[in-house]
Amino acid sequence: MIRLETKYTKRIITDNILKSIYQPRINRIVRRLKRKSAVGVEMTGWIKYVQNYDKKELKDMLRVAREWKKKQVKKVIVIGIGGSYLGIKAGMNMLRSDFNNKGIQVFFAHNMNNNYLLELLNSVGREQFGIIVISKSGTTLEPAIAFNLFYKRLIRNVGRAKANQLVVTVTDKVKGNFAKASKEYGWAKFIIPSNIGGRYSALTPAGMFLFILLGFNYRAIIKGAKDASKHLINPDLDKNDAFRYACYRNYFRTFHRYAIENFVVYDPGLSMISEVWKQLFGESEGKDHKALYPSTSLFTTDLHSMGQYLQEGTRNFFETTLYIKRPLRDVRLSMISDNLKYLNGKKLSYINEIAMLSTVHAHYEDGKTKNLIIYVDKQDAYHFGYLYMWLCFAAMASAYLLRLNPFDQPGVEVYKQRIANILKNK
Amino acid sequence: MIRLETKYTKRIITDNILKSIYQPRINRIVRRLKRKSAVGVEMTGWIKYVQNYDKKELKDMLRVAREWKKKQVKKVIVIGIGGSYLGIKAGMNMLRSDFNNKGIQVFFAHNMNNNYLLELLNSVGREQFGIIVISKSGTTLEPAIAFNLFYKRLIRNVGRAKANQLVVTVTDKVKGNFAKASKEYGWAKFIIPSNIGGRYSALTPAGMFLFILLGFNYRAIIKGAKDASKHLINPDLDKNDAFRYACYRNYFRTFHRYAIENFVVYDPGLSMISEVWKQLFGESEGKDHKALYPSTSLFTTDLHSMGQYLQEGTRNFFETTLYIKRPLRDVRLSMISDNLKYLNGKKLSYINEIAMLSTVHAHYEDGKTKNLIIYVDKQDAYHFGYLYMWLCFAAMASAYLLRLNPFDQPGVEVYKQRIANILKNK
Repeated sequence: MIRLETKYTKRIITDNILKSIYQPRINRIVRRLKRKSAVGVEMTGWIKYVQNYDKKELKDMLRVAREWKKKQVKKVIVIGIGGSYLGIKAGMNMLRSDFNNKGIQVFFAHNMNNNYLLELLNSVGREQFGIIVISKSGTTLEPAIAFNLFYKRLIRNVGRAKANQLVVTVTDKVKGNFAKASKEYGWAKFIIPSNIGGRYSALTPAGMFLFILLGFNYRAIIKGAKDASKHLINPDLDKNDAFRYACYRNYFRTFHRYAIENFVVYDPGLSMISEVWKQLFGESEGKDHKALYPSTSLFTTDLHSMGQYLQEGTRNFFETTLYIKRPLRDVRLSMISDNLKYLNGKKLSYINEIAMLSTVHAHYEDGKTKNLIIYVDKQDAYHFGYLYMWLCFAAMASAYLLRLNPFDQPGVEVYKQRIANILKNK
Repeated sequence: MIRLETKYTKRIITDNILKSIYQPRINRIVRRLKRKSAVGVEMTGWIKYVQNYDKKELKDMLRVAREWKKKQVKKVIVIGIGGSYLGIKAGMNMLRSDFNNKGIQVFFAHNMNNNYLLELLNSVGREQFGIIVISKSGTTLEPAIAFNLFYKRLIRNVGRAKANQLVVTVTDKVKGNFAKASKEYGWAKFIIPSNIGGRYSALTPAGMFLFILLGFNYRAIIKGAKDASKHLINPDLDKNDAFRYACYRNYFRTFHRYAIENFVVYDPGLSMISEVWKQLFGESEGKDHKALYPSTSLFTTDLHSMGQYLQEGTRNFFETTLYIKRPLRDVRLSMISDNLKYLNGKKLSYINEIAMLSTVHAHYEDGKTKNLIIYVDKQDAYHFGYLYMWLCFAAMASAYLLRLNPFDQPGVEVYKQRIANILKNK
C-alpha cells in the first residue's frame, strides 16, 4: 500500500544501521502504548475508532446526506480550522478536484479574514446552501465568527425553519456552543469523541460527513484506515514504514543536525495532504524548543521558485517526497511543436514521474541533499484512509522519539489568550 | 506607503546599531549599481521599465483586451510557471478574489501534473476561452505541455481561425517557440524585455495584460511601481525601508545564525504575495550554500497547525508579517451567541488586527522570536505596484549583502537537464 524508499540517504545511513539504533526504542514505545503507560495515551482513540466505526453515526450521516440531496443542495460551506479543516479538504482534493463543478461545490471558511469571508459570503448570493460547522471545542473564535455570518445569510435566503435543516454541526458530545445550539435549533449533530484530538480526527464525522455527501466510497476510506491501524502498530521496523519514517526523521535531526524537512508533492490535489503532514508533525513535536521545522513544496510548480535554493542554498534540510503511482487521470501526449515531438506517445503521468526522479537525483547527487520517498500505490478512497492513518502513526512515533506528548498543544493557547484579553476588555 | 516596524526585535538589535553596521555596505551597493559595475547589473531593466512604460505595448494590450471583451471571453487560462505565474496571480488575488464569479473567471496552469491539467481541461468544456501563455524563454517544459493541451481544445471548441484570435503570448522578443509560433499563427504577442529576469517581470506585459483584461487600474499599478523605483534606490537607511529590511534579514542570519525566515500574511488574498516573496528571496539568494530558508504562513489559518511549533519549537527562525491597513472589504459584527456578545459592533478587520498584534506579542514576548512587520497603507492597485517593487528592491539588496548575483539561477538547470536527458533518450 505504502512503501518508504530510503536509497537516496545511503551516503550517511542505511536501514540496518537505523534499525540497530532505533528498534529498541520503537519496541519500548509500542510496549508503553499497549500497557497504556505512554504519555498522552488517553488521546489515542483514533486508533480504535476506525476499527469499529460507529454504525449509528454512519447511518445518521447517510440519512442527512440523502436529505440534502433531496433538497438539491448544490453549494456547501465547510466552517472549521486546523484539524477541523486540513484533513477534510485533503481528502476531498485527493479524491476529486477543485474544478469539479458537476455535483456539489464546496467552499471552506478556514479563517476570520474580512476580505476572504465577505467575498465568500457574496459568492453564495441568494441561493440555498448547506453549512457544515466543525469545531471540537466549540469555542474557537474563527468558526464562531464565520458561522455567525453564514448562518444569518442562510436564514435570510431560505427562512429560519429551512435554514436549521441545512446546518450540520460536528463537535464534542456535550461541550461548547455548537453542541448546545444544535439542541436548541434542531441542527443535525455528529460527534468527535473526546479521546481524539483535532489533528487526528479527519476520519471521524469531522471529515466523513462531507466525504459521504460528495459520494466518496466511505467504506473504502474506513477499510483503508482500519487496515493501517492494524498494520502500523507493529513495532518491527522491517514491517512498519510509518515508524521507519519517524526514525529516519529523528536520525537526520539528532545525528546530522538538520533544521528543516521539506515535504514534497507533485500534484496540486495533494497539497492539502502536505498541510495535514505539517500540522501533524509541527503540532505534535513543536515543543520544548525541539523538532524539525516543517516546510512544504508543490513541484514542479515550486521548482521554479524554490528550486534554486533547494539545489544550492544552505545545506540544512532534507526532503521527503510523497508520490502516488496510479493517478486519477492520465493522457498520452501528441505535441504540435516540432522540437517537442520527443514527448509524443508518452503518458503525462510518466513525464511527471521522470520529473520527480530527476529532481530527487539532482538534489541527492548534485545537491548532496538526502531524500526519502513515500510511495503510495493508488489515488483512491482506500489509500486516502490508509495514508492519513500512516501519517498519524508516524507523527505519534516521531514525537515519542523526542520524548514529547504527541497529543497536546499547550503553546497554541498563548496568542489566543492575548486576543481574548484585548477583545473582552474593550 | 510601506513602513517597516522593527520594535519587536529590540531585544537584540536597534535601528541605530543596524545603521552603523550596514550603511557603508548599502552605500557601496548603490554606488556600484549606478556606476553599472554591480554583478548582474545588466538584468536591472525592471527598475527603469516602470519609469517609462512602453506606450505602444500598452496600447496594444488595451486593444486586445477590448477585442476579447467584444468576443465576450468569460474564461481565461493563464499558462506560466515561476516568475511567469506567481506575481501575476499575486496581483489578481490582492485586488480581487478567487470567488469573484462576476466578470471573467481566471484559471492558472502552473504545472504539468496529469490530474490537475486534465481536470482543468474538463472544466472548460466546449465553450470558448482565452489563453494567455507566458514564457520568457519559450522553452520551459510545463507551459509547452499545458499550452499544447489547451490550444488543441480551443481549436476543437471554436475552430482554428477563431482560436488564433484567442491566444496571447508574452515572451522574449525573438527567442523560443512561442515567439516563432505567434508569427506563424498570428497570435497577439507582448514582450518581456531581455534585461528583466522572470521573478522581476510581473509588471511587464507578463502580468499587465491580465490586469488590464480584468479591468484593474493599470495606471495606478504603474504609478505605484514608478514611485517605488524612485524612492527605493535611495541608499539612506533612514529613508529606504526595503533596504533596511534587507539589512535586518542579513543581521539575523549572520550575527544570530537564524536558519529560517517565516513570512506571514493574515489574508488568503495575500498568500500569493508570500509566494512572490519566496521566489524573490529563495531564487536570488539560494546559492553558494548560503541564505535563510524562506518559509511562508497564512494566519490565522496556520496558527491552528504551525502555531504550536512557532510558539515553542526549535528557536532558529524569525518572522516577518505583511499587514495591509485599509482592507478591501469589511463588516461590523453582531453575534447571535450570548457568550460572543463582546464582539458586537467591532469591525472584522479590527479583530484580525488584534489577532495579528496578539500573535506578534505572543511570539516575541513569550516565544522569544524576533518579529518584523511590513505595514502597507492600503489594499489597492497603487500599493500592489509599490509593494511588488519594494520586494524586488529588498531581494536585490539582500543578495548583494551576501555577495551573490541577485539575478541568476544556475541551480535550476540541474534537474531540468536530467529530465531532458531521460525523455530525449527514450
